[in-house]
Amino acid sequence: MTFLTEVERIQQSPPLLHNMTNQVVANFVANGLLAIGASPIMAYAPEEMAEITSQSGCLILNIGTVTREVLDSMLIAGKTANDKKIPVVLDPVGVGASRFRQEVVAEILGTVKVTLIRGNSGELAQLAAVPWQAQGVDGGVGQASLREVALIVAQKYNCLSAISGPTDYLSNGREVVEVTAGSPVMTKITGTGCLLSGVCGAFLATGTDEFTSVIAAHTVYGQIGAYTADQVTTPGSFHVQFLDNLSRASTIVRELSQEVSP
Amino acid sequence: MTFLTEVERIQQSPPLLHNMTNQVVANFVANGLLAIGASPIMAYAPEEMAEITSQSGCLILNIGTVTREVLDSMLIAGKTANDKKIPVVLDPVGVGASRFRQEVVAEILGTVKVTLIRGNSGELAQLAAVPWQAQGVDGGVGQASLREVALIVAQKYNCLSAISGPTDYLSNGREVVEVTAGSPVMTKITGTGCLLSGVCGAFLATGTDEFTSVIAAHTVYGQIGAYTADQVTTPGSFHVQFLDNLSRASTIVRELSQEVSP
Amino acid sequence: MTFLTEVERIQQSPPLLHNMTNQVVANFVANGLLAIGASPIMAYAPEEMAEITSQSGCLILNIGTVTREVLDSMLIAGKTANDKKIPVVLDPVGVGASRFRQEVVAEILGTVKVTLIRGNSGELAQLAAVPWQAQGVDGGVGQASLREVALIVAQKYNCLSAISGPTDYLSNGREVVEVTAGSPVMTKITGTGCLLSGVCGAFLATGTDEFTSVIAAHTVYGQIGAYTADQVTTPGSFHVQFLDNLSRASTIVRELSQEVSP
Repeated sequence: MTFLTEVERIQQSPPLLHNMTNQVVANFVANGLLAIGASPIMAYAPEEMAEITSQSGCLILNIGTVTREVLDSMLIAGKTANDKKIPVVLDPVGVGASRFRQEVVAEILGTVKVTLIRGNSGELAQLAAVPWQAQGVDGGVGQASLREVALIVAQKYNCLSAISGPTDYLSNGREVVEVTAGSPVMTKITGTGCLLSGVCGAFLATGTDEFTSVIAAHTVYGQIGAYTADQVTTPGSFHVQFLDNLSRASTIVRELSQEVSP
Repeated sequence: MTFLTEVERIQQSPPLLHNMTNQVVANFVANGLLAIGASPIMAYAPEEMAEITSQSGCLILNIGTVTREVLDSMLIAGKTANDKKIPVVLDPVGVGASRFRQEVVAEILGTVKVTLIRGNSGELAQLAAVPWQAQGVDGGVGQASLREVALIVAQKYNCLSAISGPTDYLSNGREVVEVTAGSPVMTKITGTGCLLSGVCGAFLATGTDEFTSVIAAHTVYGQIGAYTADQVTTPGSFHVQFLDNLSRASTIVRELSQEVSP
Repeated sequence: MTFLTEVERIQQSPPLLHNMTNQVVANFVANGLLAIGASPIMAYAPEEMAEITSQSGCLILNIGTVTREVLDSMLIAGKTANDKKIPVVLDPVGVGASRFRQEVVAEILGTVKVTLIRGNSGELAQLAAVPWQAQGVDGGVGQASLREVALIVAQKYNCLSAISGPTDYLSNGREVVEVTAGSPVMTKITGTGCLLSGVCGAFLATGTDEFTSVIAAHTVYGQIGAYTADQVTTPGSFHVQFLDNLSRASTIVRELSQEVSP
């Protein structure tokens, strides 16, 4: 299945994305979103949250270096997004690593209606568990049950869910779609997950069906990741080449679809 | 017109620049300033603003991810710069995007005597308008009137102004100088405008005439941008090559001046 | 002397490093640590300091963009590290540049038992002096006395010390070991010192003898820096190639050791 239309839609009318991400990956995420055709804005002052979010096609909340102050801004932004029917992506970075992060996520999910929760297996396993239990970043969830974790998270929070890994598990609370794309090389640089959350935001901002948008984002992103890993495997070069390839997303997606077709 | 002397002056006595920039571009801007021969320091704690600014050849204020706390530090830094006759560059990133940013810029301009305001057309159009009106990031100002916007901003705030775009419009409040250099590829990565503000700071810190310094900074920066875009056009590679070329600024400027000469 | 075993130990059981670094270099440092095989976490919220540090193999405190709020978090993290016998690296970035930074370092050193202080000559000269005196970032200390500075800092703070420069001076308070590796190209990009502090943390977290770990970190890091500078000398390319080479650290260290052997 190809998602060329979805990619081209981003490039044709670049969505403004209010991306509240972490300090470590901000530059990489901004450049990745620009490369794929979106227009990121990263703003954190509480005084401007309502205005900035109101102008955006999607709000992304990434808790990687969250503090109480940033959380307060995120809550204003999230409520504004809900009021304006703007989709919200939550990336619960390292939620298993501290009670504070669990409380942050609980406060966001208790205040803001989230469209998509996207993270790795440990993070979503943490969110699936009742009650909240610290279990470390990698969660210790067996591969077999990841379908179930995706389903539970989607049902529990009444949203879409996406677990990134060798196979991605995406759920709308009824079904689970598996996407096997990407490359282990993507885990060698920081921020590939954070950027994927932003890319989901770009597809959600421009798409027509939310679940399709999330599937398209994961498929295209994974395809470009794997395509890049076929070219380079060391992290510095991968970082550069991945940004280059994201800027050629529609060409690469078209090229890959022709390879598969008879 | 070549500005080889101005470039070499930076490399011969590297100016310390107190660059208060945004979280998204800090790494790129620091590396770009190091590449061209300057010595950036990025410090934000109010307790050390007076000391850090006092040691610097220029203060750059970039409001890209400003908060109330950072603004307070900027005001201390700005007043110190004024006391010590150190030039100040203001980069009003996204000032059209929120009332908060308009208030931030108004507070800076009401407290600090600024040497140069540098931004894109939308940002400077916002500053030219009386009274403050939100008009989005791109301001909707026709190309024809950009000369006028540059002139108004310079006159209104009694400083130099610079509008970046396909053609740059630079004004000292009496005349407007156009610089046509650069490449659209520069807009494909985040921070090329923010880095240009820092580069203006490097030229101001080492130059003899302020308006000449701003013209030199825009010309050289645009030349190196265009030179780089002739080599690579994808964003990851452009980022790398642009830093490489900034580190060869004097060689490239010399090379380009010889091409034009008979 | 080769430190292949020490490098391989990092790759075999990747240490989690709580790296509290500055906003300018966070992305580069995270990618550098991932490349060499470590697993960095950058967290700053006071509410989660105790938990995050407790899970880590080393705590790194870098004051490059420190504020009062971050300092408070660093103190909690530092005390936790001491309680749990987790090594602590202090990188006193620009401590000569302001009284605030001197107070920050004094407060850290008065509250937290530090395993290693690593910085450049000006920074450690500042720490060696009694009483605190501002003397600018480069400290004006002659090359001849750097051995002495390393020794004084180690004795005064009862810890290991490391001065980075053309020759590195490392001391345990009794002896001083000189490591001559690296390349001046490393000073052309921001964060090579900050990353070295993190790399020291990776070796300390996985090593058996602390002084040997610091010597190994400096030797390997310098070797890979020099190896990279033999390949590329411009800053954009160096940044990329250095990350690539850090990911091949064990291969390069093995290769270099065979060149020297008869």
